[in-house]
Amino acid sequence: LSAQPPPITEDELDALRQVGRKWATAMDGRRRLPLDPTLRRRPEPPRPSRFGRFAPVEMFRPEAPDELVATESAVVPESSLGRALTGLRRVILGPPLDSAAVVHERMRKLVALPVLSADLLSSVAYGPEAMLGVLVLGGSAALGLSLPIAAVLVALMIAVGVSYRQTLRAYPHGAGSYIVAGDNLGARSGLAAAAGLMMDYVLTVSVSVSAGTDAITSALPMLHPWVRVIGPGMILVLLAGNLRGVRAAGNLFAAPTYAFVLAIALLLAFGIGQAGARGFVAVPPPPIPATEGIGILLVLRAFTSGASSMTGIEAVSNAVPVFQPVEWRNARTTLTWMISLLVVMFAGLTMLIHFDGVVPRPNQTVLSQLAHRTFPGGPVYGFIQASTALILLFAANTAFNDFPRLLFYLARDRYAPRGFLRIGDRLAFSNGIIVLGVVAAVIFVAFGGRTESLVPLYAVGVFLAFTLSQAGMVVHWWRRRGARWAHSLVLNALGALLSALVLVTAAVTKFTGGAWVVVLAIPLLILMASRIRRHYDIVHAALSVRPVSAVLPAPSRAAVTDPEHAATPQQVRHLIVVPVVRLDLGALRALAYAASLGQPLFAVHISTEEQEAQWFRQQWDAWGDHLRLEIIVSPYRAVVAPLAHYLKALRTLRPDLTLTVILPEIVVRHWWHQALHTHTALRLRRAFRPIPSVVITSVPIHVPDSAVQPSGRA
Amino acid sequence: LSAQPPPITEDELDALRQVGRKWATAMDGRRRLPLDPTLRRRPEPPRPSRFGRFAPVEMFRPEAPDELVATESAVVPESSLGRALTGLRRVILGPPLDSAAVVHERMRKLVALPVLSADLLSSVAYGPEAMLGVLVLGGSAALGLSLPIAAVLVALMIAVGVSYRQTLRAYPHGAGSYIVAGDNLGARSGLAAAAGLMMDYVLTVSVSVSAGTDAITSALPMLHPWVRVIGPGMILVLLAGNLRGVRAAGNLFAAPTYAFVLAIALLLAFGIGQAGARGFVAVPPPPIPATEGIGILLVLRAFTSGASSMTGIEAVSNAVPVFQPVEWRNARTTLTWMISLLVVMFAGLTMLIHFDGVVPRPNQTVLSQLAHRTFPGGPVYGFIQASTALILLFAANTAFNDFPRLLFYLARDRYAPRGFLRIGDRLAFSNGIIVLGVVAAVIFVAFGGRTESLVPLYAVGVFLAFTLSQAGMVVHWWRRRGARWAHSLVLNALGALLSALVLVTAAVTKFTGGAWVVVLAIPLLILMASRIRRHYDIVHAALSVRPVSAVLPAPSRAAVTDPEHAATPQQVRHLIVVPVVRLDLGALRALAYAASLGQPLFAVHISTEEQEAQWFRQQWDAWGDHLRLEIIVSPYRAVVAPLAHYLKALRTLRPDLTLTVILPEIVVRHWWHQALHTHTALRLRRAFRPIPSVVITSVPIHVPDSAVQPSGRA
Repeated sequence: LSAQPPPITEDELDALRQVGRKWATAMDGRRRLPLDPTLRRRPEPPRPSRFGRFAPVEMFRPEAPDELVATESAVVPESSLGRALTGLRRVILGPPLDSAAVVHERMRKLVALPVLSADLLSSVAYGPEAMLGVLVLGGSAALGLSLPIAAVLVALMIAVGVSYRQTLRAYPHGAGSYIVAGDNLGARSGLAAAAGLMMDYVLTVSVSVSAGTDAITSALPMLHPWVRVIGPGMILVLLAGNLRGVRAAGNLFAAPTYAFVLAIALLLAFGIGQAGARGFVAVPPPPIPATEGIGILLVLRAFTSGASSMTGIEAVSNAVPVFQPVEWRNARTTLTWMISLLVVMFAGLTMLIHFDGVVPRPNQTVLSQLAHRTFPGGPVYGFIQASTALILLFAANTAFNDFPRLLFYLARDRYAPRGFLRIGDRLAFSNGIIVLGVVAAVIFVAFGGRTESLVPLYAVGVFLAFTLSQAGMVVHWWRRRGARWAHSLVLNALGALLSALVLVTAAVTKFTGGAWVVVLAIPLLILMASRIRRHYDIVHAALSVRPVSAVLPAPSRAAVTDPEHAATPQQVRHLIVVPVVRLDLGALRALAYAASLGQPLFAVHISTEEQEAQWFRQQWDAWGDHLRLEIIVSPYRAVVAPLAHYLKALRTLRPDLTLTVILPEIVVRHWWHQALHTHTALRLRRAFRPIPSVVITSVPIHVPDSAVQPSGRA
Repeated sequence: LSAQPPPITEDELDALRQVGRKWATAMDGRRRLPLDPTLRRRPEPPRPSRFGRFAPVEMFRPEAPDELVATESAVVPESSLGRALTGLRRVILGPPLDSAAVVHERMRKLVALPVLSADLLSSVAYGPEAMLGVLVLGGSAALGLSLPIAAVLVALMIAVGVSYRQTLRAYPHGAGSYIVAGDNLGARSGLAAAAGLMMDYVLTVSVSVSAGTDAITSALPMLHPWVRVIGPGMILVLLAGNLRGVRAAGNLFAAPTYAFVLAIALLLAFGIGQAGARGFVAVPPPPIPATEGIGILLVLRAFTSGASSMTGIEAVSNAVPVFQPVEWRNARTTLTWMISLLVVMFAGLTMLIHFDGVVPRPNQTVLSQLAHRTFPGGPVYGFIQASTALILLFAANTAFNDFPRLLFYLARDRYAPRGFLRIGDRLAFSNGIIVLGVVAAVIFVAFGGRTESLVPLYAVGVFLAFTLSQAGMVVHWWRRRGARWAHSLVLNALGALLSALVLVTAAVTKFTGGAWVVVLAIPLLILMASRIRRHYDIVHAALSVRPVSAVLPAPSRAAVTDPEHAATPQQVRHLIVVPVVRLDLGALRALAYAASLGQPLFAVHISTEEQEAQWFRQQWDAWGDHLRLEIIVSPYRAVVAPLAHYLKALRTLRPDLTLTVILPEIVVRHWWHQALHTHTALRLRRAFRPIPSVVITSVPIHVPDSAVQPSGRA
């Protein structure tokens, strides 16, 4: 997982060699430099800079003959604003980490299990409740359907789990849906799986945070009005933590999951024990009037809502390489444990809900109600709620690891902006982390932090990824036909089929309930990714080096070369243009710089009135008219557009020339002084950028803070 | 009134001549250019560009031997966004106007009177009401005080008017308070007067618009809930109209004022006629309980509120040059008429209010009540309200002429940002107009469009300007002591004294009522103006040309020259640095460009890992290692800051060198593609800008919209 550039092909090296041969003649004996770029030969000992900090020379440590290593002090910008921001960031996120600090730790199964299953197991905190929340619309009578639906869900869990077991064996280096689907079904399917997973990760954060907030407010109802603060606050903590690149020991991450498993085990043991004491007679739920008829649609909706308990099942498949060897075998065992735990917890909770006659209530989660009944007002109740909130937070944290990694893979394949390749100074994929945090917070706020509104969006993305990944495995087994391929193919096909059924059911029955957002967003994401890839391909083609002969057909002037393809010094034919407003030191310096380059040059002055042109010519003549001067009178007082058009006109006359525009530019020390300058240089640069073969040179003049004698500065 | 640069002093020309002499040796016989910059010698007839528009060559018309004139088509930017914005602006504001279209029209007195007095006379629409609004706090009994207060105000009007008459004679070229106070009392007093006037202009717009809205809603009460839309809407219309640079005939501008004078004349004639029919017995006002005791403070507050009727008296003094000759004499006559009209209207309305027993009411102006009583429900009532609204709109329009002109004067004296010198493409001072419109709208909205809340802010700024301008005149007469100086001095001293009294009274009695805003803002504006002047003076000093000998003490290397003061080509000593990320066409082009300049150069590669450095060296060696390469390993993965520090380190080694950094830069065609690039070139440019003596060159590579064969483009 590194932003390493792709290996260089032999073709590329050949093209470089060919181009390089033409350079040899141009560069003979031109290696003499007026200073030593390794900074070794110093004329005098370096003085500390004005803040008593490192002198710039000392920020670099010589390494190989032509190599320097930048020390940590070289990372801090020089400007006071930049230094302040860097300082602030370091207080929050910690000092930057050396690339060498990346460690690839391996996890034992007993550590991997809790770390990887936080997302999956935490789902039982809201999955059964989401199912009941739909059923209750059919009145108290419909609640009885929860047991058969749960039975079907358990079967589905086992089938998908078994199916994933096959995947782990085939992709020991990481079996993310994006890779598996992309490998076997084509790039577009991979993108679809990635889009589904991205939606999944975003919703994991939103849903886990909202369910975690529910767990807290169920225990402490006075916090209820603060839901819209607690939720984004939790996301902010996760964001900051992940930007810090928390790499705390796996042991620490194991605790919340084990605590939650213990909490649910206690709840189930005592709860079912109490039910047994009553002779397993179910407490009838309070009478609730039906607002909807009990039909197949209601059952299917309840089923897909319950299926949200399965989110997070794919976590192991992404993480195979972190297991101890034999990786895939250990991962498979862990997966089996995870599924078993999930099945026991999910089935047990559904049964307990049934025995206790609990129904969803607005301000208290079903889990909290169960805990209340079983351990009325005791510390065990507090423990159950706290461990629920904690595991949900850790589940959200999982998404903060997976989402940026997925974006990294996409960016590496040029399907996502290159910025997601960047590893921040804390060795985290900062950009992906920030995007996830912001989008999840926006969704949380947009849905008012209501778990029941967020869950319907969930199933579509997850089951799309499941389906594509497992369908990809079917193709994989069919193509390879290695050992036991038929057995694996059948299991994966079953998994794919069941997942696809859930996917279609969820998309259809939940469409108006919110799933339309996801159904719409996924194709949009795929389209966007393809467009991004197309753009990068064009850029790559435009920037790839071709042998010189292909670029320069003949050395004749008749066949005009595009100066933007000049890859050797001989191909560059210069003309320098210096726009001048008045003949002050800035302008003279730009002219002196231009003239010292020894290439053909002329000056352009743009006047808004004939009178101003004469005023300028008076200065110009006093100076001695040493250069060709062209005056453009612009009676409509525009400066930028006419100059741009003039450059284009010059280009029409001689498209083979590289036009260099040299702009004097005033640099002020403080940003608040910038409002006092008209930024003509900036506006010119912006207008000239789109013109082909125009090179723009800024010759800055730095304005001091106070009027000093210039000869006093050295 | 033109943005003409100041005349060039002989010293400046001398410095240019001295610098120029050094150039002569450098530039011998270097005037040959590879093309004709006058665009005359064309290799082929120009083809129209892809939109069937002008080819760039045709946008310029040759004028003098070395001079081109940009036609209107050269003003339109090439980019589609720029073209769309320009098109939109032209639809709203009209096509650009040629500088030659400026005409300086002269006005007859009968035209000048209404045009210049709109601001002054419109004040009677809210002045008497503002006075009553304060008195009524003392209960019905206090209303009787309106007559003596009005009498004092009339005396004040006459005194200030007579005082201004003296000013016109002395400053026939325009006697704005900023100029008169600055000339005679020093720059700081001029700034104080300018600050007062600026507050006055802003408030004129806000108050006139709010009073105009009142006039409309009094007649059409159903519009009352829309006040917060109507007001900003009116300001928007004024803004757009003034940005169009409406130069409609004075005759048109005369109509509203005459209509308003006629309306008030009708009202007074019929109203006082009706009162006479009743035997001049005043109708007792409705009984109103007092909320405040009748004391000196209440009277003074009522007085200063009534004094808001005098705003606009200074309009003639700014406009002396627009009169027909003899300008100052005609201006003085016009001023006398204006004051007479004001006195008659103000006194008449106050009396009529007294006779009719009218008191301020929330949803109907006093003027509307008077009109209702005198002409119940007739067309004359409608005429009075309409002409009131109209003259108030024109009064606001006056500020849109005066405020930008004042800012222009300030900017010319370097007390305001240079942007206010700019004359827009409709020959209007667009920036000043926009600032006024925005600030006035913000104030209007902040005060909820309530005239009675805005009026207390008014008097301080106006009377500060009055006081300073007339105190300035006292000094003027004392210094000159020409004909009739003592007479003028006494009159001006009286005016200054009375104005100062009103100023102090207003500042003290209204301080808590809103005047504190103005009392605070004026010193802040003065401070800001001084700081701006200081910055411009520093810039001016930094950019002024000094004779070469002063810059370059000796041609020895030991005495290090600051490269930022190199005003001749001989002084420039080059070192070119080319940062390279990978060896693609963009990098090769930048290297080829750099090498073709024939100056010492080397390449820098920055790697985040040792491994990446090796990858790069593989490319570099394949190419042939034609240049010195320096590799910087940045283990903290920062690129921008270490490169900036490296440049600073090079500068420490050889402060006499001009370092040119050549950056390859990808230019994409659409802004939405920009998110896909990391903009390293842009960030580097921003980091390098503050480093002295570093020249930054962008060598762009333009990415096409689709992957074309590059050799197919010519």
